[in-house]
Amino acid sequence: MESRPLDALNRARDKKVIVELKGGKQYLGTLRAFDIHINIVLEDTEERVDGNVSRKLGTAFIRGDTIILISPA
Amino acid sequence: MESRPLDALNRARDKKVIVELKGGKQYLGTLRAFDIHINIVLEDTEERVDGNVSRKLGTAFIRGDTIILISPA
Amino acid sequence: MESRPLDALNRARDKKVIVELKGGKQYLGTLRAFDIHINIVLEDTEERVDGNVSRKLGTAFIRGDTIILISPA
Amino acid sequence: MESRPLDALNRARDKKVIVELKGGKQYLGTLRAFDIHINIVLEDTEERVDGNVSRKLGTAFIRGDTIILISPA
Amino acid sequence: MESRPLDALNRARDKKVIVELKGGKQYLGTLRAFDIHINIVLEDTEERVDGNVSRKLGTAFIRGDTIILISPA
Amino acid sequence: MESRPLDALNRARDKKVIVELKGGKQYLGTLRAFDIHINIVLEDTEERVDGNVSRKLGTAFIRGDTIILISPA
Amino acid sequence: MESRPLDALNRARDKKVIVELKGGKQYLGTLRAFDIHINIVLEDTEERVDGNVSRKLGTAFIRGDTIILISPA
Repeated sequence: MESRPLDALNRARDKKVIVELKGGKQYLGTLRAFDIHINIVLEDTEERVDGNVSRKLGTAFIRGDTIILISPA
Repeated sequence: MESRPLDALNRARDKKVIVELKGGKQYLGTLRAFDIHINIVLEDTEERVDGNVSRKLGTAFIRGDTIILISPA
Repeated sequence: MESRPLDALNRARDKKVIVELKGGKQYLGTLRAFDIHINIVLEDTEERVDGNVSRKLGTAFIRGDTIILISPA
Repeated sequence: MESRPLDALNRARDKKVIVELKGGKQYLGTLRAFDIHINIVLEDTEERVDGNVSRKLGTAFIRGDTIILISPA
Repeated sequence: MESRPLDALNRARDKKVIVELKGGKQYLGTLRAFDIHINIVLEDTEERVDGNVSRKLGTAFIRGDTIILISPA
Repeated sequence: MESRPLDALNRARDKKVIVELKGGKQYLGTLRAFDIHINIVLEDTEERVDGNVSRKLGTAFIRGDTIILISPA
Repeated sequence: MESRPLDALNRARDKKVIVELKGGKQYLGTLRAFDIHINIVLEDTEERVDGNVSRKLGTAFIRGDTIILISPA
């Protein structure tokens, strides 16, 4: 029973999320922070290509305007 | 008898919608939230490619600037 | 005898319009609403590809920043 | 003897102009209206491809952010 | 001895400039006007492709967000 | 225990970070400065292509809107 | 010991810099001016393609939103 999209991000805080970017990359990590531009910070971040882990990144700041979708993992 | 586009989104709230993105992806889900940037939250989300379900996502936050079209399903 | 572009959209309200998008898609429908971002709502919407109806959509919210052109049909 | 670009558009009002868009399309029509976003309205509009008339559109609202150039015809 | 980029455009006013656009087109003309969005107006405008004049345009309003570079000719 | 993405950048200040750009380029350097547009300054900057150092740049100002991701190296 | 990215540009003023653009072009010149949009003015500008001088431009106004990176040469 929410009316604002950022409420959904708030509920996902400190949980595992999948983040999809415009260029086709996908990141899986724990959502630690976000702002109104949808800039986000993930921890324990894994970059995935075609469903496989391609790289481990630890903390990752991702700029909002490259993001298509964020979904609980 | 509406004058503002967001009124149409408001009437679609809690209903199934199809969302089309710039990159060609299509999502079907229940519209739970939106804001003036057209950031939206879908529930029971299905990603579709060429009309077939390619992935189930549960809750999905979709960033407004990637959206082309939202239509009741 | 108009001085502002949105006056032209206002005169097209409740009339059939053709809407062309950046990605090459074309929509034909009745213009029900628009705002200053040129977000629009069409009713009885038909998606057209190469002049042929490819899909019927009913109500469609189209995000302004994907729109190239709106013209009375 | 002008200092602002919109003065040039103002002098072109009610005259035939060529409008070139980012996607390569070209429109010829009478400039009826424009705003600070360079959204414009043309009348008696012809779409041209490779210098040939490909379509006649009557009134056309063209969104500013797709426009490259406007020049008196 | 200038500190602001628009000062350089101001000094180029009423002089011949080359303007390069994102899509690769190049225009040569007399800079008559500009604004803070870098919308510009050229007179005696020539469109050039690969260094050759491809078209003469007279006055041309060019939308700022398509411009890469402006340089005295 | 942070709530804002820029806090993560602040903790990365004066540390080695990897910066990924939209065009596919990757820079490794010490993060010296950033602002709310995510414009950043790196020192001892190395440009990498396919994981190999392709160029050494010293100080580099990188414009925020080209950045996808910043991560401690 | 700087906290803002524009401080780095300020220190580069009147020095040789390399400027890289989104489209892949590279300019080498003396940085004379910049503003908060990262619009810049170079003097004694050389355009480079694949490391070779392709063109000499004298003064060049470069629009900020096409810039990826600025680095002392």
